Amino acid sequence: MNETKFPHNAKKNWIGVDVGGTKIAIVLCSEPPIILERVAFPTLPEQGPQRALDMIQKTIHQVIQKHGLAPADIAAIGVSCGGPLDRVAGVIQSPPNLPNWDNVPIVSTLQREFIVDCRLENDANAGAVAEHRFGAGQGTQHMIFLTMGTGFGAGIIADGRLYHGVSDTAGEIGHVRLTSSGPIGYNKAGSVEGWASGGGMAQTAVLQVKTAIENGEVTSLAAQLIANKTLTAKDVADAARQGDAVAKRIVHSTAERLGEALAILVDLLNPELIVIGGLAMRFGDSLLAPARIVMQREALDVPAKACKIVPAALGEQIGDIAAICVAMGF
Amino acid sequence: MNETKFPHNAKKNWIGVDVGGTKIAIVLCSEPPIILERVAFPTLPEQGPQRALDMIQKTIHQVIQKHGLAPADIAAIGVSCGGPLDRVAGVIQSPPNLPNWDNVPIVSTLQREFIVDCRLENDANAGAVAEHRFGAGQGTQHMIFLTMGTGFGAGIIADGRLYHGVSDTAGEIGHVRLTSSGPIGYNKAGSVEGWASGGGMAQTAVLQVKTAIENGEVTSLAAQLIANKTLTAKDVADAARQGDAVAKRIVHSTAERLGEALAILVDLLNPELIVIGGLAMRFGDSLLAPARIVMQREALDVPAKACKIVPAALGEQIGDIAAICVAMGF
Repeated sequence: MNETKFPHNAKKNWIGVDVGGTKIAIVLCSEPPIILERVAFPTLPEQGPQRALDMIQKTIHQVIQKHGLAPADIAAIGVSCGGPLDRVAGVIQSPPNLPNWDNVPIVSTLQREFIVDCRLENDANAGAVAEHRFGAGQGTQHMIFLTMGTGFGAGIIADGRLYHGVSDTAGEIGHVRLTSSGPIGYNKAGSVEGWASGGGMAQTAVLQVKTAIENGEVTSLAAQLIANKTLTAKDVADAARQGDAVAKRIVHSTAERLGEALAILVDLLNPELIVIGGLAMRFGDSLLAPARIVMQREALDVPAKACKIVPAALGEQIGDIAAICVAMGF
Repeated sequence: MNETKFPHNAKKNWIGVDVGGTKIAIVLCSEPPIILERVAFPTLPEQGPQRALDMIQKTIHQVIQKHGLAPADIAAIGVSCGGPLDRVAGVIQSPPNLPNWDNVPIVSTLQREFIVDCRLENDANAGAVAEHRFGAGQGTQHMIFLTMGTGFGAGIIADGRLYHGVSDTAGEIGHVRLTSSGPIGYNKAGSVEGWASGGGMAQTAVLQVKTAIENGEVTSLAAQLIANKTLTAKDVADAARQGDAVAKRIVHSTAERLGEALAILVDLLNPELIVIGGLAMRFGDSLLAPARIVMQREALDVPAKACKIVPAALGEQIGDIAAICVAMGF
C-alpha cells in the first residue's frame, strides 16, 4: 500500500489502535490519512483484556518490523475506544461493549512495552478530530461528530479544538431524554440513544414489525423477526433498500428522532457542521433528509440555516484514522 | 463610591450600557468590578429606539464629565442587550423585550459620538463573562451561566473562553423542547423557556392556582390572580416566602423542569459550574435544591457529580458588570 510513495520518516510514524467490541485494528501511518498497514483481529471481550493486550502488543511489533521500523521510529501510539475511560490516566473503564475490561491501564502497558508516547481517547472524540482534520469537517471551526452505531455519542469541536469538559465526558447527547418514556438506550427510557442509535432503530423495528404482523401488513422483516427473535439496523437497511414499506417507515421514525437530537445540538452549540458516522453512512439521505427537515422545524432559524448535516466522509476508515489522530495529538 | 480609592487612569475607564426592556443603565468603571457611577432611566420601548439612543449618549457625556473625564479617557464602551443581535455589525435586532428596536446600529452610533471602541454582546454571554471574571465562576475553565428571568438563555465558557458558535447564537437552551406540549416559551410549547423561565413559572402559576381554586384549596395567589388576571414569578416568590403551600408547589414544579434543563447541559457539556441568575437569586435553595436533585437523577453520574449549581454571585449588579465586561473585551 503506497509504501514507496510515502517513505518512512523516523519522526513521522504513528500507530493507531482502534478498540471495538467486535474487533481490534492496528494501523500504521506515515503520511496520515494514508494507512500503510492495517491488521485486525477479534476482540473476544468475554476472554477478558489480557489476551487482547497481548495481541495488540504482538501485532504492533509485527507491523513495525514488517515496515523496517523499530519502536524508536514511532512518534506515538494512539488508542481509540468507547467510553467510559480515564483519558488522563490512560485507563479503559468497562465500556458497555467490553464488559470485562475493568480499569485496563492500556496506556502504561503500551508505554512500558514500546517506550514511546501513548494516548487514549474515546471514539466519539477521536472520530470528531479525524473528520475535522481529514474528513468532512476540514476547515470548520465549530463542528460536531456523532457516532450513530450501537450507541450514540458526540465529539465536539469548539473554536477549532476538541472540547472535553471538566471530567472528559462532554458530548453525551445519547443520554439526553427526548421523551418521558420510550425505547431504552444508555440505561434511560426515551433517550436519544434509545430512539436514534442503531440499537434504538432495532428496538423501534421490533415494535413496528410486530404491529405490522398484527395488522396483516406484508414485510420481509416479519420472517426475520420470527426466525431471529430480534432485528438489527442492518436488517432494516437491507429491507428498506428492497423497497419494504415497513422498513422505510422505521427509518423515517428513527430519522425524526435523530432530527430532534440534532435540533438540541444546533440550538445549544450553533455548529456550522454536524458529521454523522455509523448509520448515516449506511442509510445516507433516506435517513438524513427527514432528519434535516425535523431539525429545521425544531431548531431556531438562524442556527438551523447555518448548520449542514452530512455523513462522515472517512467511511469505513474512520475508526483507523481516528486512532491515528489520537496518536498525533489534538 | 470609592472615587478616591481608585483614581482614574486614562487607559482604564470603561463605560457599560445595560439595555433592558424596562430600564437602561449607564455605568462607569475604573477598577472593575467596582462601579464608580451608575445612572439608570426607563427604556420606554414603545417610544422606539431614537429617544433611548439620545438618552444613552447624553447620559454617557454627563457621567464622564462628572468624573472629570473626556471621551478620549474612555478605553471602550460595552453594550449588553437581549438577543437577537448582530454582534459583529453591532446591531440590535428586535429583541422580544424591545419590539420596536428594528436593526438599531447602536455600536456605530456610539462610536461616531465618542470616537472610542464600542462592542455589543447579548446579555447571557455578557453575564457569563461577568460571573466568570468577577463572580461565582472565577478560576473555572468550563462554566455555564443561565439567565432565568423573563427568558431563559445560556452563556457558555468553554476551555476558559466564551463560546459563540458559528452565527453567534450558541446557548439557546431556552428553545430546547422538554415535552411535546406544555407552556409556551420562545414560541415553542414545552420548551425550557416555557417551563423554567420566570415567564414559564408565571404560566405554571396561573394553571396551578386555577386548579387550587377549583379544588377549594386556600392560597393567597387566588385573590391576586382574580384581581390582576395574571401572576408573576415575584407573586409566587412572595407567597412562597409567606409559607403558601400552592406557591411552594409552583416553585417545586419549576425547579424540576430547571433540573431537566440542567441535566441536558451537564450531559452535553460537562461543566464544572452552572451559575444561574434571575429567579435563582430571588428563590435561592427553595428552587435550586430540588433542581439539583432532578439534575443528579437525570444526568450521568460522573458529570453530575463534577458540576456545582449556584446562584449568580454578582446579584443585582450583574447587568452593570456584564456591560463593563463587554467594554473590556473577552
